[in-house]
Amino acid sequence: MPPAPTTPRTTSGRRDAEATKAAILRAARHFLAHHAHADITLKAVAERAGVSAPLILKYFGNKEALFARVMSFETDADALLDAPLDQLGRHMVRHVLTSQRDRGVDPILRIVFAPFHGEQGDILRANFRTQVSQRLTERLTGPDAPLRAELATSILLGLGVMYGIARGTQVRSTTVEEIVDRCAPAVQAQLTPS
Amino acid sequence: MPPAPTTPRTTSGRRDAEATKAAILRAARHFLAHHAHADITLKAVAERAGVSAPLILKYFGNKEALFARVMSFETDADALLDAPLDQLGRHMVRHVLTSQRDRGVDPILRIVFAPFHGEQGDILRANFRTQVSQRLTERLTGPDAPLRAELATSILLGLGVMYGIARGTQVRSTTVEEIVDRCAPAVQAQLTPS
Repeated sequence: MPPAPTTPRTTSGRRDAEATKAAILRAARHFLAHHAHADITLKAVAERAGVSAPLILKYFGNKEALFARVMSFETDADALLDAPLDQLGRHMVRHVLTSQRDRGVDPILRIVFAPFHGEQGDILRANFRTQVSQRLTERLTGPDAPLRAELATSILLGLGVMYGIARGTQVRSTTVEEIVDRCAPAVQAQLTPS
Repeated sequence: MPPAPTTPRTTSGRRDAEATKAAILRAARHFLAHHAHADITLKAVAERAGVSAPLILKYFGNKEALFARVMSFETDADALLDAPLDQLGRHMVRHVLTSQRDRGVDPILRIVFAPFHGEQGDILRANFRTQVSQRLTERLTGPDAPLRAELATSILLGLGVMYGIARGTQVRSTTVEEIVDRCAPAVQAQLTPS
């Protein structure tokens, strides 16, 4: 799961700052997935991101603010939910798998590390609930929408665990579209039950 | 997810030893789900299990042997797979949910902590592959059985994450049989595709 350390590659002003921020967030996310919150230092995040610790402070304020950003699912949910409802099952399965395959990250899987982060874990859970489950619920119609949103999301979480953590040999050697064909119907059945 | 510390409750010889071993395994499993492998001490496991560290050594030999037991899915897979193939989808979903609800544990979910355990994580993944995915594959017939086994297992992992880690309010407030009704068809569709 951990990608290689990354350094910003762009050079022009504004884009450079954005690329640097993204590198810092990637580095912080890596540590969040491998260490307890209290064990993570700004220095380590800075080293992994290829920047200085003061630069992190300049961009994010302090360690807690940085991790608040990392613990947010807002931006990832935007991309995850970016499809019409009748195609959303296929889109979400494809988005999880291509994110894992192409970038070694998963839009929602960091929720599994909640138990390692003490009180921060509760923040992660609350964010997940409002920014993922509830946002998906708002897209649905019909009875039991909140439950169906959780069940649809759970299928995506399971695929993420199997691909990125258990590293299942079969799902990793099968094309994304093949897995979409096999898994999206179960997701869509929760979104728009017949 | 963490249950309260447990102490053996039985008194007669043989049963007492079994209950003590179970308490030690539960304690070790708790730490495995919350701390990096290197940070876990026999003393901490002993305290949580309500036994002495020498007693752990007597029963399991050493820390590595104890964790080898904890990293095995053998016994859990026995219970998970204990149903005829045509009812296995419902059985597996029900087994995951009742284990979570009644005992605060999950038969297979500890695979998600693999990233925290360094080389031990690879052992956990290899065990998961041979003791869960491959054992399920051996029960299946028809094309792509290994892939279908991983996809069926991934649904169970996702439910476990949603219930035990994300603590989804909906899945936790819905009856097990209701969730079985809603989720087992997707699992069974992987096991015995029509």
